Parts: sequence; structure tokens; C-alpha cells
Amino acid sequence: MERVRSVELAGKVGERVRVAGWLHAVRRLGGMTFVVVRDGWGVVQAVTPAGMFEEVLAESIVELEGTVVGEPQLELHGVTARVLEPAVVQPPLPLGKKRLERPLPALLEHAVIANRHPTRRAVFRLAAAAMRGFRRALDARGFTEIASPKLVGSATEGGANVFAVRYFDRTAYLAQSPQLYKQVMVGVFERVYEVGPVFRAEPHDTARHINQYTSLDVELGFIASHADVMRVLVEVLREMLGELAACPELAVLGARLPVLPEAVPELHFTEAREMLGGSEPDLSPEDERALGAWAAERGSDFVFVIGYPMAKRPFYTHPDPERPAHSRSFDLLFRGTELVTGGQRLHRAADYEAAIAARGMTREPFAQYLSAFASGMPPHGGFAIGLERLLMQLLGLPNIRLATLFPRDLTRLSP
Amino acid sequence: MERVRSVELAGKVGERVRVAGWLHAVRRLGGMTFVVVRDGWGVVQAVTPAGMFEEVLAESIVELEGTVVGEPQLELHGVTARVLEPAVVQPPLPLGKKRLERPLPALLEHAVIANRHPTRRAVFRLAAAAMRGFRRALDARGFTEIASPKLVGSATEGGANVFAVRYFDRTAYLAQSPQLYKQVMVGVFERVYEVGPVFRAEPHDTARHINQYTSLDVELGFIASHADVMRVLVEVLREMLGELAACPELAVLGARLPVLPEAVPELHFTEAREMLGGSEPDLSPEDERALGAWAAERGSDFVFVIGYPMAKRPFYTHPDPERPAHSRSFDLLFRGTELVTGGQRLHRAADYEAAIAARGMTREPFAQYLSAFASGMPPHGGFAIGLERLLMQLLGLPNIRLATLFPRDLTRLSP
Repeated sequence: MERVRSVELAGKVGERVRVAGWLHAVRRLGGMTFVVVRDGWGVVQAVTPAGMFEEVLAESIVELEGTVVGEPQLELHGVTARVLEPAVVQPPLPLGKKRLERPLPALLEHAVIANRHPTRRAVFRLAAAAMRGFRRALDARGFTEIASPKLVGSATEGGANVFAVRYFDRTAYLAQSPQLYKQVMVGVFERVYEVGPVFRAEPHDTARHINQYTSLDVELGFIASHADVMRVLVEVLREMLGELAACPELAVLGARLPVLPEAVPELHFTEAREMLGGSEPDLSPEDERALGAWAAERGSDFVFVIGYPMAKRPFYTHPDPERPAHSRSFDLLFRGTELVTGGQRLHRAADYEAAIAARGMTREPFAQYLSAFASGMPPHGGFAIGLERLLMQLLGLPNIRLATLFPRDLTRLSP
Repeated sequence: MERVRSVELAGKVGERVRVAGWLHAVRRLGGMTFVVVRDGWGVVQAVTPAGMFEEVLAESIVELEGTVVGEPQLELHGVTARVLEPAVVQPPLPLGKKRLERPLPALLEHAVIANRHPTRRAVFRLAAAAMRGFRRALDARGFTEIASPKLVGSATEGGANVFAVRYFDRTAYLAQSPQLYKQVMVGVFERVYEVGPVFRAEPHDTARHINQYTSLDVELGFIASHADVMRVLVEVLREMLGELAACPELAVLGARLPVLPEAVPELHFTEAREMLGGSEPDLSPEDERALGAWAAERGSDFVFVIGYPMAKRPFYTHPDPERPAHSRSFDLLFRGTELVTGGQRLHRAADYEAAIAARGMTREPFAQYLSAFASGMPPHGGFAIGLERLLMQLLGLPNIRLATLFPRDLTRLSP
């Protein structure tokens, strides 16, 4: 008899089927034994003879045959069962409980097992859906996926906070982003995207930073300004949310899909600063939360802040010709936290030479990158979405580590 | 007037359109000037007034308006034009020529510009199609995409040839593959895949090795043997080839899609060894070429070699119960070069403990990994396809570096 997946049972009422998976829970209630088997997609409950699996450890690989009953709930009756592969230890976490309420360090230390819990794996299935929606939106708009180098010869972008790698007889660095490569590839494909790991050697120990994360990067040419980039971003986010809306995992987590209005509220940095008070050339996490509340009052989970001061943006940022101390860059805040950074970039060789000189940076490491601009580049721009940030905010997780399969931070290189 | 992409022109015959892109070539023939503009997807030829763009450098960003004519070929007539962004140097390579015949080092040194050539960028658009086909095939079969850590705490897999990273006050290593993570994730999702960079510190300088490449990784649970893995592999490859078949870039490169028969020829390692002579427990590149020729005689561009000696396979390899010196692992050769490695893995905690001890490896770095097997794992297996290898063999490229946007090797960390 061919194995049936848990998610296919609803279509098999009245039939005899075989299911297999992990022994998720055994519950004894008033002389009955309910066995719950978890497979890769869901769980199946079976009403079994008393005593079944009494001596079997949770998480053992088991197989059940039974008849699918639809009322009062979907379950298996008339069950025969066998153990395919016994577990040999008690799992370190109570996976059979509805909620996995354990302190963060225990969840991370035992992530190999913890990620099996329905509420944990739901997070990562939603991550897969978000990536799928991202790619689908961009494929449909003529974008081409690229795979850029993660080992680079110099710490080009900003300089600080890069990981050094012993590369044969030299030092290489882990790429902090595919920024320079995606811009160069606009010269090849006009519209490009990449989904890949980025590495930040930031010695922060905060709830919203990790040292490797998944960056959803986009860059496109022939734009009129950053507004074109923002428009593509909103379209892509809308398709990502559509893909998430189709996932049963949202219900597993009781998550509420955000409101992304047709016209996302937008504030210039100077307006935001005036509203918030203070004079810092950047927004603090507290400022971001206040702007999130401001957007929520306007019926939106998102808010654009445009026109960040040039002084706080990287050298490739395009200034606003009307207010040159401000940039054509933006952040998109999602429920009060920065989710996306983007903007228009410089596209003329001479502007790059000037920007690099003005910042006292060395030209040499950029020689190849600059050659792209000397040989013709259209006005262009792009953005990067932090995948784990998206999940953290979407699901209201208290820590970004809970949106990461196996997070890397100041103290964690394992599992 | 809205800009039209080159690939949309065929549907606009008789209409007046605006196109924009890079000044690809200017050809003067018998008093006429033909201007070729390249955009992100193709090229457009325009018949223009004599002298147009005479003083303009190749690769400048230009815009044309003209009427689309369908006969004798698709081109623009009655053209007006302007330069949007002038290039400021001559491109270092003759991009306007039909073939970019330059020595490998020049192509790699100037990859930022070389990748703009229609024959170069076609390679990378096919790479994107291959990734898309891979994911589509797996999404349709209930697989979930994962993003595993690229920084690991110990050089677990094999030990040699890993890059060391200064990770705050410790040493980390770049992951050589997502092997251990994808196995662990079978415990979560049963069926998983990952598309991502892997890092090999191999000090080889060969035409078929690079130090970062893109690995298309798959792992699935509840298999009967490696044969189930091979079946999924062939299905996935077939969908990837279908996706490639739909790409106009195949014609740009004059590439021939391979023959993947319903029943891919299959040889046991001992049969192959006997056929080839010799007694090495592995296959040399020359052996692989001979097996490729053997398969070609049987009408296949692919051949499976199964049953590799256990001594040559990693510790997690499942032995063949009938011939324990041989494994339930396989290689898939494509036109005489290894393209895929895969097989069934061990799935019992005790088997892992024994394999690690027998190889004199230290248990400690594997503690978390082993915890997955102690808590119940089904028989499982998987495979990894090297994306750049696939393109090299598909397109008959003489060097894998030509199948890589910006390759990393012993001497190259830039561009």
C-alpha cells in the first residue's frame, strides 16, 4: 500500500491508508489511546488499541495502517502499527506539546530537534514561501537571478565589520552584501536579483541582529528615480504576501498578514525627524517604533522613509538633486522595524570618483567595479529585504534568532 | 512614449516605438549606418542617417525612436536618437563582435564588461533557468527550500580543504556543503532542498574546479534505497532541461540539449572498473570520459555509476548490505564528467557512532548532528548538482570559470 501524506488524508475518508512519520505524541484518555504521528507536512491522529507504543520513545519512526474517518474529526480507526526505526533517547524538548515554551537558549542549543515542532517548522516553511513569492514576482517582470561571489578581495563596502578569511596565501573577506555585483550586473541583464547569505561581523548582541542572514536583493536599470524602485518593491512584497496567504502555516502560528495599502504612507526623513523631535541624522529603533505606530494609525503596517541624509548612506548613494544633503534612498519599515533599505545609486564614473575621493576611500579596490560605470550604465537602483527580519515582524517573534534555522551570533557557531 | 524591450519588437511591426540600451555596434555599409542597440534581453538593429553616433563611444547608453519594420528583417527605420549617458572609455573588449574570442585571462580580468557580450550573458541566463527548473520540480514534489549556515564551528566533513574564518575571538570554517544540515532537516520537512554557495579550499588549478560554486542540494526521507534518490534526480533533471529548452539563449550559443533517456544507463563501480581496466578505487577524469563515450554509444548523454567503494566515500554513506565494501552511493556523469554525487545515508545513531569511530574521527564536533539520529530518522538520501559543471558540460565550455559570473580560484579574488 502506498504511503499517504498527512495533508492528503482529507481526500481519503472511508479508505484504508498507510501513513508514516515520527511518533509525535501518545495520549491516554479514558481507556483509549490516541497516537499522533507527525510527517513532513502535518500530523495524523489515530485511535489505537490500549497500550499501543507504550514502550516506544517519542520521535521514533512509525508506520500506521488504518481507515480514514472524517467525523467528528479527521482520524484513523482500526489501526495496525509498527515501529520502523526506534528513537534511542528521549527528545531534549517536549515536541508533543501544543506550544514549545522553552527559553531561547534551550531552543537554539537543541535547534536540530526543536525545529521539528509544528510551530517552529511553520516559521521556516513560511520563509520558503516568502522566497518563492519573491522569485516568482521578479521572474514575471523580466529579472534574472544571479549568484555572486561571497569571497571578496577587499573590504569594499563601508570597510568595518567584515569577516576575514585565510584564502591560500592571502586574506579574503566575506561579502557583506552583493551590492557592487548586482549593480555591475545591471550592465548585463538590466534587472537582476539574488537570494543568498550575507555576512556581517557586527559585534552586536541584540534581538534583531545576526551575523549571517538571507538577503533578498534586487537591482534594476533605466529608472527615473528611487520612486521606480519603491514601486517594484511594493509589487514584489504584495506577491510575497500573496504566497504567504496560501500557507496553512499562518494558521498554525495564528499570524495576521499585514496590510500593505495601495499607497504606502511615505515620510521624508526631515518630516519624520521633525515629528519625532531630536536632530540625529539617523533613526533609532525607538524612532522606528514611533513611525510604525504613526503608519498603523493610517491603516498601514508599512511606512517608507525617504531622503535619508547622505552622510549616513554608503558612497554609491544618489543624492537628491534638489536637496543634495539628502539622498534618493529609502527605508521601508514594517511594523516599526527597518525591513528594506534601497534607493537610486550613482551611475556616472565621475560621480563615483568624486564620492570615493570625498570619503577618503582608496580607489584601487574598486577599479573593476568602476570600469562598469566608465563603459556606460543607466540610472539604476535597487533594494534588499532581510528575510529573517520579515519573518520576525510578520510573526511577532521576540528575537530574530527564532526566524533563523541555525543562527550565527557572537557565541553561536553550532548547531 | 513607453520604452519597449528588444524581445517585444516582433509584436510591434508597423508601430513607432522607443527602445533604449547600450550602443552595441555601429556598422557603416555602402552609405548606410546600422546601429545596434543591446538591452537586457537582446539586440535591436536600426537603419539610421549616415554619421549617427560617429563620435560616441561603444557601450554608451542610448535611446532610439523609430518605426518597426518586419521585412527583410526586424529592424527600426526612420530613426531619431539621443545619447542618455555617454561611455567615457573604450570598452576593454570588442563587445560588438559576434564572437568574443579573447584568451581566458582577459575574459576573466574584464568579466564586469565581458559578461555583457550576448554569448557570455547567455550562459548566465541559462544558469538562472536551470535554478528555476530545479526549484520548480522540487516545489511540485512537496520539497521545502532551506537556508543553512555557511559558517560552521568545525571542519566536520572530511576535514581537509576548508577555508578558515576569523570569527570574533574564534576560528570558524566556510561550509563545504550543506550536507549535515540537509540531513538534519529531513527530520523536520522530510524533503528539502537548498541552492547556495559552497566553498572548497582545494589548491587545484584545473579547468573543472573553482573554490566557490553553486550547489543544488536535495535530501529526502522514507526511501527504500539509493534507487529512489536516483529516480527523483532524473525527474528533476528532466524538468531542468525542459526549462532550458524554452530559453532563446540556447540558440545564441548553438547548444544542443542532452539526451536523458527514460532509463539512464547504469553501471556498478566494479563493472565500470572491469571495463576500464586498472584497480583504483575511484574513477579518474580519463575513466569518466571513457564512460561518457560508452553511454553515448547507448544513446545517452548521462550514465550512473553506482556502488562506489565505501573507502572512497564520506562517513555518512550507507553501505550496500549485500556487498558491504561497496556503498549505496552513485555519481551521475554528464558527457563524461561527474555532475552529481548522491546516495543513501546512514540513518541509525549506532551506525554513525561506529562509522565515526572506525575512521578515527572525533565525535564531539558532531554531537548536535548525531542528536538528530538518536531522536528518530527515517532511511534517507540525497544528491548535489554542481550548477557550473552542468553549464560547462551543457555548453561545451573549455573551462568551468566560463560558467561562473566572477570565478574564485587560486589567484582570483577579483572582480
